[in-house]
Amino acid sequence: MRIGVDVGGTKTLAVAVDDTGRVVAEERRPTGWGGRAVVDGIVAVVAAVSHGVRPDALGVGLPGQVSAGGVVRHALNLGIDTLDLAEAVSAGVGVRPLVENDVRAGAVGAASLLPGAGSIAYLNLGTGIAAGIVRDGMPWRGARGAAGEIGHISVDPAGAACTCGQRGCIEALAGGAAVAARWARPAALPVADVFDAAHAGDPLAAALRADVVRGVAAAAHLLVLTADVDLVVLGGGVSHLGERLREPVRAALAAAASESAFLGSLELADRVVPTPRGAPVGALGAALLAGATAVTGV
Amino acid sequence: MRIGVDVGGTKTLAVAVDDTGRVVAEERRPTGWGGRAVVDGIVAVVAAVSHGVRPDALGVGLPGQVSAGGVVRHALNLGIDTLDLAEAVSAGVGVRPLVENDVRAGAVGAASLLPGAGSIAYLNLGTGIAAGIVRDGMPWRGARGAAGEIGHISVDPAGAACTCGQRGCIEALAGGAAVAARWARPAALPVADVFDAAHAGDPLAAALRADVVRGVAAAAHLLVLTADVDLVVLGGGVSHLGERLREPVRAALAAAASESAFLGSLELADRVVPTPRGAPVGALGAALLAGATAVTGV
Repeated sequence: MRIGVDVGGTKTLAVAVDDTGRVVAEERRPTGWGGRAVVDGIVAVVAAVSHGVRPDALGVGLPGQVSAGGVVRHALNLGIDTLDLAEAVSAGVGVRPLVENDVRAGAVGAASLLPGAGSIAYLNLGTGIAAGIVRDGMPWRGARGAAGEIGHISVDPAGAACTCGQRGCIEALAGGAAVAARWARPAALPVADVFDAAHAGDPLAAALRADVVRGVAAAAHLLVLTADVDLVVLGGGVSHLGERLREPVRAALAAAASESAFLGSLELADRVVPTPRGAPVGALGAALLAGATAVTGV
Repeated sequence: MRIGVDVGGTKTLAVAVDDTGRVVAEERRPTGWGGRAVVDGIVAVVAAVSHGVRPDALGVGLPGQVSAGGVVRHALNLGIDTLDLAEAVSAGVGVRPLVENDVRAGAVGAASLLPGAGSIAYLNLGTGIAAGIVRDGMPWRGARGAAGEIGHISVDPAGAACTCGQRGCIEALAGGAAVAARWARPAALPVADVFDAAHAGDPLAAALRADVVRGVAAAAHLLVLTADVDLVVLGGGVSHLGERLREPVRAALAAAASESAFLGSLELADRVVPTPRGAPVGALGAALLAGATAVTGV
């Protein structure tokens, strides 16, 4: 039995995946703060979903930089600066996990649910913006594991200032943290609040919403023109806006392509799809990656 | 013996490649205009470089859209609208060629000369701008063969108008045809003329040069952040500016990365390198692709 875990800022979710890649059980726990609490939470949720049976393969996806050896750095949402997560979880579960960045795990999980697509980009719209590119079920990591880090590509030198020093980065336009900072009003879901206020006629909200739409559209446009993925799958918290976001993004892509036969032929708007509803793509992807590694021994 | 042919707007070059991937012979002929003349030129140069011995594998790279079946469309530089090139060359040479887009063939050839790199993007700076992405020797084509078509990614909504209808596309900033149109002065090598005039103090030329630099830098930046290729290899006619182009491009990349530890860690500037001097990367790549296909039968 393959077990996959998705550690988010709020909750930790574990799934059990059968041989066909189907999720057969789920358990969740609140995520604690700091390395010790996060590891304890992983161990607990794995024990719960596996009923105490040691998994054949275990994968863990979480937000942060993950080295090949399973060391996690800068998982700021979780209060983790540096942690040898693979070692710590191995001690608690008795199986050494494959550890992966949450966007990449989500990409693998989403791709497994879209078997008609030879390649996808899973565009995670969260606190920041990043994409996981998957082809034939395997993630593209790149030379330094930075493939898909499209948040700091600037698409407007006169756009909003970004924390990276540039202006008009995709993340500065459409990232959850950037939007929340520019909205500067308390809200449980700042981007949803912005879309509500824009709908009600607030001019600042309308401008911020326009930036979110153009940032997401630019991300999809460049993922298709660079990697020519079959689908751009929207995921992450901001994607829960659903059609309120997808419809204007598709319209923006169609408009940009309207004057060029070449761009029109790419059918950009049609390639933008939601994550299959409610699917635990991060945990599922972590399980699939762990299973693949276990089989190949690589 | 594998033979590779690179059909350019001016000349057609053929190389013979031995089993180790080394070029052992070269021949060239002027390229004719229109399908019949182009095919005759290919047949003649293949006969010359192979001394009349039928090749084991034959590859042809040329500028245009190439279908999997070897049909070429919109090779405007060559006066070809639609042509079943594979069939026509097969009739003349006795071997059915693998036909590929010239940028993709150039990428494969360049990658073969840079064995330390697991992946490269060959950034072709020609009449237009496109990139070929190669990983472990094989090109990434994408869902519709459009992978690497980065010319029509906009990096400045207030930038120069592009033929595709957008503004500030990478190609509108740095493509040879776009620069020539904006310079609007007769010159054998318009972009070189622009760089010369900029050096001499011409303000329009200085502005055009700045756009070329920022367009090329933006292309390199997005190729690294999206695909995280080990190297971005500059090729094509505009790349013959050499250090006059590479130095300011590297400086622009370093400056953009200077305020972000993440971007700095990517060592963007260091990844931009020239095509190995004088190497016939297009023809070499075509030969290597043909040889790979012949071996696998795919």
